Amino acid sequence: MSYNTFGHLFRVTTWGESHGPALGCVIDGCPPNIPLTASDIQGDLDRRKPGQNKFVTQRREDDLVEILSGVFEDDDTNGQVTTGTPISLMIRNTDQRSKDYGEIAKAWRPGHGDYVYDAKYGVRDYRGGGRTSARETAARVAAGAVAKKILGDGIKITGYLTKIGKHEIDRTKIDLNQINQNPFFSPDASIVPVWEEYLDEIRKSGTSIGAVVEVVASGVPVGWGAPVYAKIESEIASAMMSINAVKGVEIGAGFGAAELMGHENADEMYLDENGKIAFKSNNNGGVLAGLSTGQDIVVRMSIKPTSSLLTPVKSLNRKQEEIDIITKGRHDPCVGIRAVPVAEAMMACVLADMKLMHRAQVG
Amino acid sequence: MSYNTFGHLFRVTTWGESHGPALGCVIDGCPPNIPLTASDIQGDLDRRKPGQNKFVTQRREDDLVEILSGVFEDDDTNGQVTTGTPISLMIRNTDQRSKDYGEIAKAWRPGHGDYVYDAKYGVRDYRGGGRTSARETAARVAAGAVAKKILGDGIKITGYLTKIGKHEIDRTKIDLNQINQNPFFSPDASIVPVWEEYLDEIRKSGTSIGAVVEVVASGVPVGWGAPVYAKIESEIASAMMSINAVKGVEIGAGFGAAELMGHENADEMYLDENGKIAFKSNNNGGVLAGLSTGQDIVVRMSIKPTSSLLTPVKSLNRKQEEIDIITKGRHDPCVGIRAVPVAEAMMACVLADMKLMHRAQVG
Amino acid sequence: MSYNTFGHLFRVTTWGESHGPALGCVIDGCPPNIPLTASDIQGDLDRRKPGQNKFVTQRREDDLVEILSGVFEDDDTNGQVTTGTPISLMIRNTDQRSKDYGEIAKAWRPGHGDYVYDAKYGVRDYRGGGRTSARETAARVAAGAVAKKILGDGIKITGYLTKIGKHEIDRTKIDLNQINQNPFFSPDASIVPVWEEYLDEIRKSGTSIGAVVEVVASGVPVGWGAPVYAKIESEIASAMMSINAVKGVEIGAGFGAAELMGHENADEMYLDENGKIAFKSNNNGGVLAGLSTGQDIVVRMSIKPTSSLLTPVKSLNRKQEEIDIITKGRHDPCVGIRAVPVAEAMMACVLADMKLMHRAQVG
Amino acid sequence: MSYNTFGHLFRVTTWGESHGPALGCVIDGCPPNIPLTASDIQGDLDRRKPGQNKFVTQRREDDLVEILSGVFEDDDTNGQVTTGTPISLMIRNTDQRSKDYGEIAKAWRPGHGDYVYDAKYGVRDYRGGGRTSARETAARVAAGAVAKKILGDGIKITGYLTKIGKHEIDRTKIDLNQINQNPFFSPDASIVPVWEEYLDEIRKSGTSIGAVVEVVASGVPVGWGAPVYAKIESEIASAMMSINAVKGVEIGAGFGAAELMGHENADEMYLDENGKIAFKSNNNGGVLAGLSTGQDIVVRMSIKPTSSLLTPVKSLNRKQEEIDIITKGRHDPCVGIRAVPVAEAMMACVLADMKLMHRAQVG
Repeated sequence: MSYNTFGHLFRVTTWGESHGPALGCVIDGCPPNIPLTASDIQGDLDRRKPGQNKFVTQRREDDLVEILSGVFEDDDTNGQVTTGTPISLMIRNTDQRSKDYGEIAKAWRPGHGDYVYDAKYGVRDYRGGGRTSARETAARVAAGAVAKKILGDGIKITGYLTKIGKHEIDRTKIDLNQINQNPFFSPDASIVPVWEEYLDEIRKSGTSIGAVVEVVASGVPVGWGAPVYAKIESEIASAMMSINAVKGVEIGAGFGAAELMGHENADEMYLDENGKIAFKSNNNGGVLAGLSTGQDIVVRMSIKPTSSLLTPVKSLNRKQEEIDIITKGRHDPCVGIRAVPVAEAMMACVLADMKLMHRAQVG
Repeated sequence: MSYNTFGHLFRVTTWGESHGPALGCVIDGCPPNIPLTASDIQGDLDRRKPGQNKFVTQRREDDLVEILSGVFEDDDTNGQVTTGTPISLMIRNTDQRSKDYGEIAKAWRPGHGDYVYDAKYGVRDYRGGGRTSARETAARVAAGAVAKKILGDGIKITGYLTKIGKHEIDRTKIDLNQINQNPFFSPDASIVPVWEEYLDEIRKSGTSIGAVVEVVASGVPVGWGAPVYAKIESEIASAMMSINAVKGVEIGAGFGAAELMGHENADEMYLDENGKIAFKSNNNGGVLAGLSTGQDIVVRMSIKPTSSLLTPVKSLNRKQEEIDIITKGRHDPCVGIRAVPVAEAMMACVLADMKLMHRAQVG
Repeated sequence: MSYNTFGHLFRVTTWGESHGPALGCVIDGCPPNIPLTASDIQGDLDRRKPGQNKFVTQRREDDLVEILSGVFEDDDTNGQVTTGTPISLMIRNTDQRSKDYGEIAKAWRPGHGDYVYDAKYGVRDYRGGGRTSARETAARVAAGAVAKKILGDGIKITGYLTKIGKHEIDRTKIDLNQINQNPFFSPDASIVPVWEEYLDEIRKSGTSIGAVVEVVASGVPVGWGAPVYAKIESEIASAMMSINAVKGVEIGAGFGAAELMGHENADEMYLDENGKIAFKSNNNGGVLAGLSTGQDIVVRMSIKPTSSLLTPVKSLNRKQEEIDIITKGRHDPCVGIRAVPVAEAMMACVLADMKLMHRAQVG
Repeated sequence: MSYNTFGHLFRVTTWGESHGPALGCVIDGCPPNIPLTASDIQGDLDRRKPGQNKFVTQRREDDLVEILSGVFEDDDTNGQVTTGTPISLMIRNTDQRSKDYGEIAKAWRPGHGDYVYDAKYGVRDYRGGGRTSARETAARVAAGAVAKKILGDGIKITGYLTKIGKHEIDRTKIDLNQINQNPFFSPDASIVPVWEEYLDEIRKSGTSIGAVVEVVASGVPVGWGAPVYAKIESEIASAMMSINAVKGVEIGAGFGAAELMGHENADEMYLDENGKIAFKSNNNGGVLAGLSTGQDIVVRMSIKPTSSLLTPVKSLNRKQEEIDIITKGRHDPCVGIRAVPVAEAMMACVLADMKLMHRAQVG
């Protein structure tokens, strides 16, 4: 992991700005002979795509992915497969508005990277947030689709929203089939109208709201991960925290573990009816001492409210003068929603990497 | 970061098991000409040392550090300094009890790495948890002491406990001078008797309890860190989550940010009385878009309760037979306490690394 | 360095196959505020471009580079500059012939990667050699142009051919101004007609010939590089050996050093007429103990003859049947020629990386 | 590879100075369950050990290795095995002479790292060359012994000297059984008296002489290595060039390839009497396009003459005054000799790393 590259052996390097000609990634280290076409990737991109309903940004992007290298249609095989060489993926930006960036160009929007980028680099592409825009996450989703192919069908990664503002799902009503039936990736149908009304209100008042995303990976075999600084939980935390707007990551009981006593927290082991190793609970969220336990890996992350606001906030401009700033344009009133497929993608990338690392060390 | 190495340019590789002859680390990439003697490191090790009071493990270790390489007493300089070559640090284990490990050797303690290590590696040093023991963190604390030297006096890193079980500090009573005046690294004197009584009870009932640790780094200049996968928050999350028993990491408002609206969360900017850039709040915890803002970097982490319990829990042995298991021996009833200096050390290591990374790219 | 990425801090990830839609690279870690336009890169690409004379491959490629990210036209600065974010460069392939690859597709050409790729990956893009084609080096040359910008005008990197087959330049006649005046990058005008005649003969007889390339970097300050496994000579050796067809790398006296006695090899030090540190010789080629000495860094590499031959050679096909194989199509009779700008580019990339590494550790 | 760490997945971090208390390495990423005791390592260390005859340095070191971590005597297995956790190895320095370093301390010996270290770091451990001493290679040899265990018996790595000064072995007389029968690791018995007499002369005249080392790895399966920047030849070049005094590395025909025509250089393929894939020659030295071919991997490197001389040479001191300098003390008149086990060790480390990398990507 370095600058714009993520992963040890399944390595993803992303590039591109919000309003440049394109964005993309290079995936290195992918095993060969995995069937892969653009349509395998497009499905995931479509889930993240902007402009799909009124609860997300109205920017219109088709987010069509092109595979520029690393695959080949071999006669011996059944269709196009990965060749083991770097897979270059590109997504063109098509809805860069030629609007006047005058004000934003010279000002620092609170909560955004404007000030810190200027302070560090002395220059930044201010159009739509440039490199700091969440548009970068399209490249992650594309990489995640490839990662899932490496993981295979036995591993299932499911993300959903559990909370918008103070409105939380009812965990007794979780039905994973609901997730793609509503605009919020909610697994609880009953909260959908509540969130709809709440978000409408948020949107109309020109503000935004935070959220919590949960991602579950099931089917991960026992033993993936590596001590001490490549712990699977450490890799996951790093991956999730690198997503725009994420301010917290927890695994299993997470912050709740602070309130538990040892005997409450112990995920006792037993043999299930089939004589297989099982656990009575999953407070550890599927990881112990840096390795997967074979249980579901359960991760939650908090997403801060979008910092682009239609209500004026106090700030400074590049000349270090005090100003009031309003961020016009197209924004997600709750970025947490579109973070769901991104978080799934990052989980897939970490797990694909861990699969290869595991294979390297223990065969 | 790979397996047992942490950091990009300030690189720490740790080694050693709980009951082996020694543990230690190799620090690579340290700048030259930094005054460094064993006593500079010993102070931090002493804060983490076991056996200092009844609220931590009764194992007795002096944790004396030896510097085996990377320093030199040069005539031109005033005393011993780093030379820019790898600094090898070693701490001998002196209180490895020659007790019978019979039962533990053959069993998997819930909440520990026993089962996953056996599943992955097929072999493990079961004495005191082997490589998964929190004794490994002594090497981190040693490395952190060197990292602090790189950071210099302008950057101050302060860790403390904010919560044990449900008992939380009163934030209005925080006084950092209190931290080293009580056995809990509590910044709030008023909670000390509460925690004392509560932990006594926990300890006597043969169980353990979780905690929350907060670490604050002040004096970090604006602009450290790097987009997109070496974000400073990503590096911190990875570092903290790699500490034994940590199950969650949050920065700034953290999980609280999920409940905030955009205008509440905005850390508005202004010019202070000296005409310097300032922020009205710090919900972002001193980081934006992967870079430091110049504000305090504020990180919290949850620590699960020690999994070694004197009360029996259900588990399996290596023959996959169901058993009841009690972990005799010496344990921390609340590992969160001794995690404080460890978390400080990891913060120091991340920041030293970011300082060097920053210097590399922007001079 | 991993798979398709080169460098520690100035990191270049290349992608693309010979006959895919495009090839390119992502450059990460570039410092900000360096003026950079496509034309800065195009000049170097033009030197490496195929089809420029009868001594190189007749494939016609314009090798026009597009900058897809990482630069910005800022009002405050004078024109387009790097922003510190990843620079994505793309070069489209335009002269992929739609010829029948039937024979090559099913056969293993000796001296090429065909057999080993099939053995490792079980699949390969056989069109024009796929990923193993020297077309990949266009991306290196593009990256090298950016690296040179980081190094600045004070550092000059000059490559040239010193030998084709047994025909070697006369070192007493070296005139660097000659290098771009002949199709061989020869610094010795007197050997040009010899090489012309010799290569014509080689080409007409359907075979190919090896060569030796020398690269000199002058102006490198003392102290760049790092012990022990990031020695500047180690990095250079790795970089050069990664270029297609390179079979040997030597620095300074190189293999000649094996025949020298210590007192002959000693690069004695003295003060020159200006009182500056100087050396009486440069047998060490500008590097000592992993660090630059401030002298010219002098590197030589041997390039094997092109393995694509119009004369039949014995080989096997994918069914493991013995065959005679002729590689029709367009080839360089002496790949060493076009290796010159590639070797310069790799030297530039290594030095830019070392510059940043040096700055990181010693400020 | 970074500073003092070598390898991607089989990672070796070395530390220590010539006259410090100890030197050693941490090996990370080693697969578990490999039988390993100190005596497995000691044999290789003994081959490199100084003071064994009059042709090498007279420094007396037993070079006894201690394994401080990463192994465990498990009841289930037959003796001590690796556990998959970091293996820390330490070798104490015992023959550090308490001589006066006065002169050396203040002067820069030509051909050594003295000047460049001072220029870069501003401080250096001048005792016996400090970190730049070839004593560091003891740690490599120890790591190499572990690497060989990972490779298993099927892969055999053999190093030998082919040349001292202008005196080269007769390749028709190579008998690998001779290598350990003479003090020069010569595979040709007939040259031994020539070298003896020649080296005696060199030694007595107070100078030193260069050499060429060849290392052959047989039994490496086809397909190890990775394009483009982790080519097996690139990794080998990097590894060998990092050894003290190495000034050139070549593979297969190496620099000789520059003089070959394509049809001469082609390693034609055929089926041998057993119907197995075979090659008529090995000009490519067992590597093609970055991957192993299954043939012997053949590497040669040139070693410059020891820079420590008993004859005076011109130099400068730290005050930048011109001086004559004689390096008293104990030196190898031909460091090439003891480089043989070091080069073998580096080959083993590279191959072990490539084995794990290969397994990671293609299973």
